[in-house]
Amino acid sequence: MSHKSDIEIARAAKKRPIGEIGDKLGIPSDHLLPYGHDKAKISQDFINSVEDRPDGKLILVTAINPTPAGEGKTTTTVGLGDGLNRIGKKAMICIREASLGPNFGMKGGAAGGGYAQVVPMEDMNLHFTGDFHAITSAHNLLSAMIDNHIYWGNELGIDERRVTWRRVVDLNDRALRDVVTSLGGVANGFPRQTGFDITVASEVMAILCLAKDLSDLEARLGDIIVAYTRDRDPITCRDVGAEGAMTVLLKDAMQPNLVQTLENNPAFVHGGPFANIAHGCNSLIATRTALKLADYVVTEAGFGADLGAEKFMNIKCRKGGLAPAAVVLVATVRAMKMNGGVAKADLGAENVDAVKAGCPNLGRHIENLKGFGVPVVVAINHFVTDTDAEVQAVKDYVAEHGTEAILCQHWAKGSEGTEALATRVAEIADAGMGSFAPLYNDDLSLFEKIETVAKRIYRADEVLADKKIRDQLRAWEAAGYGNLPVCMAKTQYSFTTDPTRRGAPTGHSVPVREVRLSAGAGFVVVICGEIMTMPGLPSKPAALTIGLDDNGDVQGLF
Amino acid sequence: MSHKSDIEIARAAKKRPIGEIGDKLGIPSDHLLPYGHDKAKISQDFINSVEDRPDGKLILVTAINPTPAGEGKTTTTVGLGDGLNRIGKKAMICIREASLGPNFGMKGGAAGGGYAQVVPMEDMNLHFTGDFHAITSAHNLLSAMIDNHIYWGNELGIDERRVTWRRVVDLNDRALRDVVTSLGGVANGFPRQTGFDITVASEVMAILCLAKDLSDLEARLGDIIVAYTRDRDPITCRDVGAEGAMTVLLKDAMQPNLVQTLENNPAFVHGGPFANIAHGCNSLIATRTALKLADYVVTEAGFGADLGAEKFMNIKCRKGGLAPAAVVLVATVRAMKMNGGVAKADLGAENVDAVKAGCPNLGRHIENLKGFGVPVVVAINHFVTDTDAEVQAVKDYVAEHGTEAILCQHWAKGSEGTEALATRVAEIADAGMGSFAPLYNDDLSLFEKIETVAKRIYRADEVLADKKIRDQLRAWEAAGYGNLPVCMAKTQYSFTTDPTRRGAPTGHSVPVREVRLSAGAGFVVVICGEIMTMPGLPSKPAALTIGLDDNGDVQGLF
Repeated sequence: MSHKSDIEIARAAKKRPIGEIGDKLGIPSDHLLPYGHDKAKISQDFINSVEDRPDGKLILVTAINPTPAGEGKTTTTVGLGDGLNRIGKKAMICIREASLGPNFGMKGGAAGGGYAQVVPMEDMNLHFTGDFHAITSAHNLLSAMIDNHIYWGNELGIDERRVTWRRVVDLNDRALRDVVTSLGGVANGFPRQTGFDITVASEVMAILCLAKDLSDLEARLGDIIVAYTRDRDPITCRDVGAEGAMTVLLKDAMQPNLVQTLENNPAFVHGGPFANIAHGCNSLIATRTALKLADYVVTEAGFGADLGAEKFMNIKCRKGGLAPAAVVLVATVRAMKMNGGVAKADLGAENVDAVKAGCPNLGRHIENLKGFGVPVVVAINHFVTDTDAEVQAVKDYVAEHGTEAILCQHWAKGSEGTEALATRVAEIADAGMGSFAPLYNDDLSLFEKIETVAKRIYRADEVLADKKIRDQLRAWEAAGYGNLPVCMAKTQYSFTTDPTRRGAPTGHSVPVREVRLSAGAGFVVVICGEIMTMPGLPSKPAALTIGLDDNGDVQGLF
Repeated sequence: MSHKSDIEIARAAKKRPIGEIGDKLGIPSDHLLPYGHDKAKISQDFINSVEDRPDGKLILVTAINPTPAGEGKTTTTVGLGDGLNRIGKKAMICIREASLGPNFGMKGGAAGGGYAQVVPMEDMNLHFTGDFHAITSAHNLLSAMIDNHIYWGNELGIDERRVTWRRVVDLNDRALRDVVTSLGGVANGFPRQTGFDITVASEVMAILCLAKDLSDLEARLGDIIVAYTRDRDPITCRDVGAEGAMTVLLKDAMQPNLVQTLENNPAFVHGGPFANIAHGCNSLIATRTALKLADYVVTEAGFGADLGAEKFMNIKCRKGGLAPAAVVLVATVRAMKMNGGVAKADLGAENVDAVKAGCPNLGRHIENLKGFGVPVVVAINHFVTDTDAEVQAVKDYVAEHGTEAILCQHWAKGSEGTEALATRVAEIADAGMGSFAPLYNDDLSLFEKIETVAKRIYRADEVLADKKIRDQLRAWEAAGYGNLPVCMAKTQYSFTTDPTRRGAPTGHSVPVREVRLSAGAGFVVVICGEIMTMPGLPSKPAALTIGLDDNGDVQGLF
């Protein structure tokens, strides 16, 4: 239907003043803190004032394993939210904020796509309301205070070789991955080797997204382990005395950001932790506040359901006391074909057999999600080249697995294209069919938690971990961290740790390369493969062609 | 009169919604981009739309050499603005933004003091509208692009040893002063020694504060010299291709920030370059826009008049086509006493002789300012312990120098305390008595420009500079930079380069230690003494006691 690009559609949007969007949610203008005319934060007082209201119904949008064909998870989140509003429901969406830095490497993107987008697109790809800058400042203040403590006598006995807290910057800057600081003599401190990660990889980001309120934020910041002594005793942020000042830097960043969809429905866009070394979901405070303001809240989780939904359930829902009423699993015909062995260049031609061959990836995600006790609906995100026979093949496969697949055309048609999905999802959520439970209990050992995810979600035969890693897990259990959930960091492209193995592989093992304790965020990161926490710029970065045109419009960012 | 602290007064302020403050200036609400309910940016379209209006009158507030007794320059700027409004004039003020980082070392402060303040004080000491974060991002994007260019083949032939562009962070972090980057092997680039400065020291900050509009900003960013080849040919930001993307990152930061005084009068708070290696004034775009919106614009310059006013005149006014209609020179009885040899502990006792002995510092500043062809009024910023005889001594001294000194009590009384000053300043400005001219012409040689400032402002006998420095200046002249003004970096505490020499010394020389070319900002920095561009935190940083109290109010920041 449309031949316009996402940015053209976004720029043509008939945005309503953000006060009107707040009105829809019953937020008094005093409690809506505007950033320009199309963005606002919700005051902490207002958030506190709605605490005792009943919760709306939470709907998670997740997806099959991503392929280069794209699956459209955020687009479907936006489309479903608009669809629910279209059929007369009071609904809103909660999604993550984009990181600024990577947009200067590869072109940035919309939040959603086609006629299912959140706007203002440009601001959301640039500074937005400054949340990530606040996180960068808070993170690096702690870094400076650690080195400052060492400089002024090191009363805590920090071992300079064992400072685990690095610095962050919201840019792709490979030169900062590995650096030596404090050179230049006595006045600059004690030289030591350290490095920078990108801001979204900061534990402060994960904490901000899991904290219930500002007190909880401060307590969690205090719990961060920043270094060890020569005797390997942990030194926390609280020991260094930084958590209060960090909380002050983060007090506005903790307030959810309100924007709107192209159809002028409310959206919270707040927080954006990495989906590998962190849990990859928008902030808990945004989701919880949304549940007080709307009858249906549609949210999403990073990557495919094996990573994103698993962490949403086992980390965010567990810690936040949330229970999803329904899960929408997004699939596309094209992605099914790629899982069925078709190359990206050949996706245009009808190939029902390949669709069928790829469906087991979808089937396994359905089974996994049902394992959490939540009802599942499959959304087939329509692409113009999909044929009726291909779509039917997916529907048939899903039906054989006791579930329903609904074709959605929100990309081309907006909410008109998700009426059927919205109607069905609302029915399911209203029926209260779910009996959500996380996959494992707090009291399981850390290694057993890893095994549970690996076997029940990834369908691996075994978890491989050498003695050093098992000893580390046991040491954390002895230190009182055994009750934490695990946060798996592996490739998003496969159920296995090998990104090339599509479909629904079996007979594989999960090698654990490293484990890290995020004591403030409250999880143990389990690294299975190479994880990059500071990207580099490509040889021709997008920044080379980004600029303002004669009208003052941004060019080259999208 | 008041025993309340600045923060208590600021928190008790009866702020008006920022839209009402915009109304006073005739800014339509569409063109006022709010940040919360008490801060807003002015849209670029609106700024463009007022371009052809006549200018109001520009009044500079400057001061004697600072002493530990304090002089109250910003306080007087605010008080005079409020005083002009009180006597029925349409007036506004333009001041600088505070840097975030240093507040976590030493306690932050008000913009102004007592009953002459700009609010919201807390936001202005924290993230405010995000301008400095945008500058940090733009600066460091360029840094990343330089290393990225070298990494991907170094087509420009950048000599890694001669990369002059460092990185910045808005924190006091001594560990980052001197670092080695790109360690860790081939994938991380070529190791080289570099460092971080604090954000306010960035040339990007100076450029933002001198650029006329976004096109001028982009052109100036392009002109930044970031490195040299092995043949010592300069490599610019434009060669690296970063200026367009940097401009996109800075487009909102270029818009002036509107806030209000305690008396609900409009204030632009925008930009904050270092006053030593840069020119230390708020942005040109704020000042120029203010001149279109108000009949009287009161602004200030960093440090004492020997540095701040000199740079205001020779750099900002020269480049921006501005001409001050009057200058207010702030002095205090206490500062006169300290210039007269009294220790800070003894300032409480009446000492008319010491006041008289210190007055020559004031007298020389009066003479210097008159040398720019502008009328001068002295404002005596009243302190509770000042006696009538001491105040009279200052008035008599000033009168002997053909000028008028007016006692001001804005700290205790707000605009009621500056009625007399405001009335006199308006009379002088309206009389059009000024015939402003910078101290030297563009075509003087760079060394002669340094000599002009040193001899006519500092009253030095000579400028000392070794051959290497003189050769460097000649090389820049040959390369086409000879027409630039000089930006002097020396101690603020004395006319000389020795911070302990108060009063009005003579017979001294000015040793030039180093010269630097800020080709984008458009000046040659002349360093006469130790200049610190990355502060450290003290042994007990303010951050240790900063936090939120049970009401969610910030504690320990002030």
